[in-house]
Amino acid sequence: MPMHDVPEVPEVQWGQVFEKHGGPLTYKSIPVPKPGPDDVLVHIKYTGVCHTDLHAWKGDWPLDTKLPLVGGHEGAGVVVAVGEMVKDVHIGDHVGVKWLNSSCGVCDFCMSAQEPLCIAPQLSGYTVDGTFQQYCVANAGHVARLPKSVPLNAAAPILCGGLTVYKALKESNARPGETVVITGAGGGLGTLAVQYAKAMGFRTIGIDAGEKCDAVKQLGAEEFVDFQTEDVIESVKRHTGGFGAHAVILLAVSEKPFQQATEYCRSHGTVVCVGLPANARISADVFSTVVRMITIKGSYVGSRMDTKEAVDFFVRGLISAPFKVGKLSELGKVYEMMEKGQITGRYVLDTSVSPEDQEKMEE
Amino acid sequence: MPMHDVPEVPEVQWGQVFEKHGGPLTYKSIPVPKPGPDDVLVHIKYTGVCHTDLHAWKGDWPLDTKLPLVGGHEGAGVVVAVGEMVKDVHIGDHVGVKWLNSSCGVCDFCMSAQEPLCIAPQLSGYTVDGTFQQYCVANAGHVARLPKSVPLNAAAPILCGGLTVYKALKESNARPGETVVITGAGGGLGTLAVQYAKAMGFRTIGIDAGEKCDAVKQLGAEEFVDFQTEDVIESVKRHTGGFGAHAVILLAVSEKPFQQATEYCRSHGTVVCVGLPANARISADVFSTVVRMITIKGSYVGSRMDTKEAVDFFVRGLISAPFKVGKLSELGKVYEMMEKGQITGRYVLDTSVSPEDQEKMEE
Amino acid sequence: MPMHDVPEVPEVQWGQVFEKHGGPLTYKSIPVPKPGPDDVLVHIKYTGVCHTDLHAWKGDWPLDTKLPLVGGHEGAGVVVAVGEMVKDVHIGDHVGVKWLNSSCGVCDFCMSAQEPLCIAPQLSGYTVDGTFQQYCVANAGHVARLPKSVPLNAAAPILCGGLTVYKALKESNARPGETVVITGAGGGLGTLAVQYAKAMGFRTIGIDAGEKCDAVKQLGAEEFVDFQTEDVIESVKRHTGGFGAHAVILLAVSEKPFQQATEYCRSHGTVVCVGLPANARISADVFSTVVRMITIKGSYVGSRMDTKEAVDFFVRGLISAPFKVGKLSELGKVYEMMEKGQITGRYVLDTSVSPEDQEKMEE
Amino acid sequence: MPMHDVPEVPEVQWGQVFEKHGGPLTYKSIPVPKPGPDDVLVHIKYTGVCHTDLHAWKGDWPLDTKLPLVGGHEGAGVVVAVGEMVKDVHIGDHVGVKWLNSSCGVCDFCMSAQEPLCIAPQLSGYTVDGTFQQYCVANAGHVARLPKSVPLNAAAPILCGGLTVYKALKESNARPGETVVITGAGGGLGTLAVQYAKAMGFRTIGIDAGEKCDAVKQLGAEEFVDFQTEDVIESVKRHTGGFGAHAVILLAVSEKPFQQATEYCRSHGTVVCVGLPANARISADVFSTVVRMITIKGSYVGSRMDTKEAVDFFVRGLISAPFKVGKLSELGKVYEMMEKGQITGRYVLDTSVSPEDQEKMEE
Repeated sequence: MPMHDVPEVPEVQWGQVFEKHGGPLTYKSIPVPKPGPDDVLVHIKYTGVCHTDLHAWKGDWPLDTKLPLVGGHEGAGVVVAVGEMVKDVHIGDHVGVKWLNSSCGVCDFCMSAQEPLCIAPQLSGYTVDGTFQQYCVANAGHVARLPKSVPLNAAAPILCGGLTVYKALKESNARPGETVVITGAGGGLGTLAVQYAKAMGFRTIGIDAGEKCDAVKQLGAEEFVDFQTEDVIESVKRHTGGFGAHAVILLAVSEKPFQQATEYCRSHGTVVCVGLPANARISADVFSTVVRMITIKGSYVGSRMDTKEAVDFFVRGLISAPFKVGKLSELGKVYEMMEKGQITGRYVLDTSVSPEDQEKMEE
Repeated sequence: MPMHDVPEVPEVQWGQVFEKHGGPLTYKSIPVPKPGPDDVLVHIKYTGVCHTDLHAWKGDWPLDTKLPLVGGHEGAGVVVAVGEMVKDVHIGDHVGVKWLNSSCGVCDFCMSAQEPLCIAPQLSGYTVDGTFQQYCVANAGHVARLPKSVPLNAAAPILCGGLTVYKALKESNARPGETVVITGAGGGLGTLAVQYAKAMGFRTIGIDAGEKCDAVKQLGAEEFVDFQTEDVIESVKRHTGGFGAHAVILLAVSEKPFQQATEYCRSHGTVVCVGLPANARISADVFSTVVRMITIKGSYVGSRMDTKEAVDFFVRGLISAPFKVGKLSELGKVYEMMEKGQITGRYVLDTSVSPEDQEKMEE
Repeated sequence: MPMHDVPEVPEVQWGQVFEKHGGPLTYKSIPVPKPGPDDVLVHIKYTGVCHTDLHAWKGDWPLDTKLPLVGGHEGAGVVVAVGEMVKDVHIGDHVGVKWLNSSCGVCDFCMSAQEPLCIAPQLSGYTVDGTFQQYCVANAGHVARLPKSVPLNAAAPILCGGLTVYKALKESNARPGETVVITGAGGGLGTLAVQYAKAMGFRTIGIDAGEKCDAVKQLGAEEFVDFQTEDVIESVKRHTGGFGAHAVILLAVSEKPFQQATEYCRSHGTVVCVGLPANARISADVFSTVVRMITIKGSYVGSRMDTKEAVDFFVRGLISAPFKVGKLSELGKVYEMMEKGQITGRYVLDTSVSPEDQEKMEE
Repeated sequence: MPMHDVPEVPEVQWGQVFEKHGGPLTYKSIPVPKPGPDDVLVHIKYTGVCHTDLHAWKGDWPLDTKLPLVGGHEGAGVVVAVGEMVKDVHIGDHVGVKWLNSSCGVCDFCMSAQEPLCIAPQLSGYTVDGTFQQYCVANAGHVARLPKSVPLNAAAPILCGGLTVYKALKESNARPGETVVITGAGGGLGTLAVQYAKAMGFRTIGIDAGEKCDAVKQLGAEEFVDFQTEDVIESVKRHTGGFGAHAVILLAVSEKPFQQATEYCRSHGTVVCVGLPANARISADVFSTVVRMITIKGSYVGSRMDTKEAVDFFVRGLISAPFKVGKLSELGKVYEMMEKGQITGRYVLDTSVSPEDQEKMEE
């Protein structure tokens, strides 16, 4: 296969693989994949871990995954090989690998810059192998460009979490100066959302458990509502002159918060649903939805242009996602903590291999 | 009270009044109301009858009505008196009285041309006496201007039904050439919606019971889906190249059609909920709503500008609402038929009084 | 005339009057005007001075003024009387009197929340007497509501200058994170524009003479271009990755800056023209305007809702307009300085009368 | 070069070539080009002739062409070969080759579905050889899909003229029911614009010379203004209730019509400039542009999605472009007629070769 100048790419690498849903995650030596003519091969340095990865492993979403699968879709690394058709990505470039690994390019959605809705997408760590390995293939048109000035570990969570909340804020149709409520403001997505909202000129009200109040305000929220001790609907209305908020970003869609959101949302306002709990449903009263002209919409991930914009806010220093660093070999432990709700902020895994592992691989 | 030139406005008139919800509707002689300084007094010639009137009478909506009440909010007539502050409406003008009788003019919604969401609105036939009488008061800024070239009986249903579906079509964000599904396409609102959709350049798919197919297609629908015999989701997708429709106007929101609508709606498309069945709820699957970025929104009635636009389509001859004419004295019978689902198209009541009734009044 | 509780409003007051265009400005005792039924009477405490006032005095715009005229349209003060129809403004309220004194309320533009384009507007200090007097009449629906927490002198320049640049930024269609160029960034409007742009989440490039660089950057501009020493087109492109800016706010429309703006504006970007030099024309090359899909638009003043929003940014402490305070009696001197270009920032006039003047009045 | 199943594609073909701007056009035998991996080879059956082709030949636009050049960018034909990366276009498909032959796919504009503004585009018949030959190469992602039900000669003018006016109408921001003025309504672009405008639900006023009145009205214009005998500004205002039109599509931008357009355009309306006369400039009065908030914008060609939409209106039978058919060998004569303004409607050239020419080629 013709490729420009491929420097020292090994034949094998370390990755986290599972054979069946819910089955063992194995950290082992696997072949380095080969990029197609319009792909790049990225040496992943750091990869975030997201709830989606947990769903992919469990298989509890109504969408089939590839099996066996290498999960992961928040990878930041360095391009080490490019396919023969690729002109605008070069070996040595820093890039991000995101959820949307490639799209067909020619369906109505791709032609309308809504490629996350592509009718034939490939999804990193879901329908194709993802970033829980040292070398990952992605479509050249879809990798996010990262300037060399930003650290790759800090950038990783932007590629999914940052992009997702940025897209949701865009979809909210809020304008600068208008008020946006962020539910779960102290969580992994929430802390990103509060910062993006502030950078976008919105006034922000964070909702979360009381102990997160200070942190959320420090990130830029003007007001904080403690859902454990306050009447949420009453409080949001009080902070918005009685009208309610122009938009609500509902980061974890479940029945009660959703119902509340439609009530503290201003007439003609928008409730944007982001999270994807398995089997969840939303339900609203027709009379009030119609008479108050409430909009409820789902927001998924961003397009390539949204990604560029979301990264740009990060590069400008306006977004800093708190994250902890672990090793790729520890993915199983991270999943355990995630299931127990023990993680605050984002976990980022370093893919470099310890000398002992390296030794094993060479045996 | 200073008023320009008031010609022969009687002191008493005939109207339909009820004292308590679900109580007797009485057709009787009542005083002619007096307009305030920024009001007009309209000699109602014809008034439409709408499901909302039935709800007002029953009192089954979560919003209090005035009591005793003269219902009705689709009135077309002639201005017979104007308040002293009124400059732009003149005695003799043909006007329509609509659901929104007046709005405060200064809340955020009024200042944003979204006065149906006004925080202190007056609603015709609900919070103030409406059009089921011969002389009705309405705020001068809110009456719809009707050219003398259009017949007042045909215009009446445009003032609520026409306006409502036109607004819903605007809120759908569909663009000319895109496909809009109208559920209940053969009903009173549906027949109006199909005609507006066509006039607005949309491609239309009507859904209703099979016997309405020909009528719906004749009004302009490109395709018809019989919900009694077809798999609705499958059929809409087949008519839209597999993608689903860009927008759905859900004229009678109930669980199953709503659920279907979110499934045959195109990704990033919009389901607009219009009808107001008492106590109804909508419920959607979070996963698919988010991943397909579906928008669900409520649409209520239109603004003053929307009204002008909706009337303009009618004046241009693009909309003809089939209607039957009765007498105002027959309102009770119309309610009965309405409850039994026996009405196709719209009922319009003539407020003129028969010689016998006139005699009784003079006794 | 029926009016609630009118406390100590005098019969006469001091104001600045001219009888003919370019004729003498006379500071003299004039009658206090009476509000109509939907008006309020405002005791003006401070009034800004704007270039428009100079044009009104000179009569060099293609729009007739009232004569004799009391100019001024940036007044901040206290309501001292309200007309009998007024419900939502109360004696003692702090309010602003702005350029749009009243609008008809019923034309297409008023019905669409675009009342600055009203077909029958009244303009403060132009078609009706304005704020260069101690007591000024304005339509109750049009006065800007000011919280008592903000000083009236600082608020005055927001009511015209602030509103104008805020509206222009809205009309630019720029989104948070996009780059906006402000020409004349160090001037009266420019300093406001830079602050609003930052508060709205835009990245800002200021263009002005080099000595204003530090001040402009301190107000929030990310980059500064010195039009005296730099190739403006080249510099803006360099600061925007070669693409040009998403929007340009052209605060003083004249041939060369306009021409440059269309060239350093990004393809599909927008050049918003704000200033109103007498007799100026704009001219653009068709080929490049079409092929690059450039939008050129005029922006005038904001609506009532825009005013509320612009004031809100100010109340939140995000906008501070540098201003100098003089006395209303000194208006003539301020005009002189204005004509000589000697004013930086805004001039605000205190309408309170010195004991000597007061004495003269009582004679 | 790997390619699926290439049936009988000859090595040589007939085409119209020129070596230098304004030099002789030669109809001669030239090699059939080879498609790259993401290209298709299209057997052009019919090609439209557009003013742009004349500019390309003369070289009077400020943008360099390839030389020698085969012009033409409105080609309709059959796919006869596809590159190895192409998945969604198949041999035998009917497709159109349009002005935008390919785009980079990764610049901000390509990522935003605004690929006509791509920073590295290839333009058919301008920077790469176009459709004035029997076999033409185009990027697979950019060819327009044509159903086999539509005749290829009628489809050709849609691929540039139709697309251009459709895009301009979209850029006008007019909504269904609003009024759009089409200048040059009886010309090649104008007749297409009137039909698209009607199909999109706009009310249309055509402006042209009086003898075109009947034809323009028959295509769907509600009103016609004869620029030779009427006061254009006065007439448009009269037809629009005194307000002016919501949008103007200026198909031939020159000084006087442009100036008039800004005057008969409604406040807050839009003048869309489409035509590209060499060296033309537009010029507007600042005062009125600002005070009336007029938008002036350039519109170029449409995106791939716009193309799909424009073709869809045509396939639905709503657009019929009058055209004359000639032979490709007659291109020179067509240019002559074009320069003399002797063409009404569009010229479409048949690329099939007469037996005599065929003989010459075989010699």
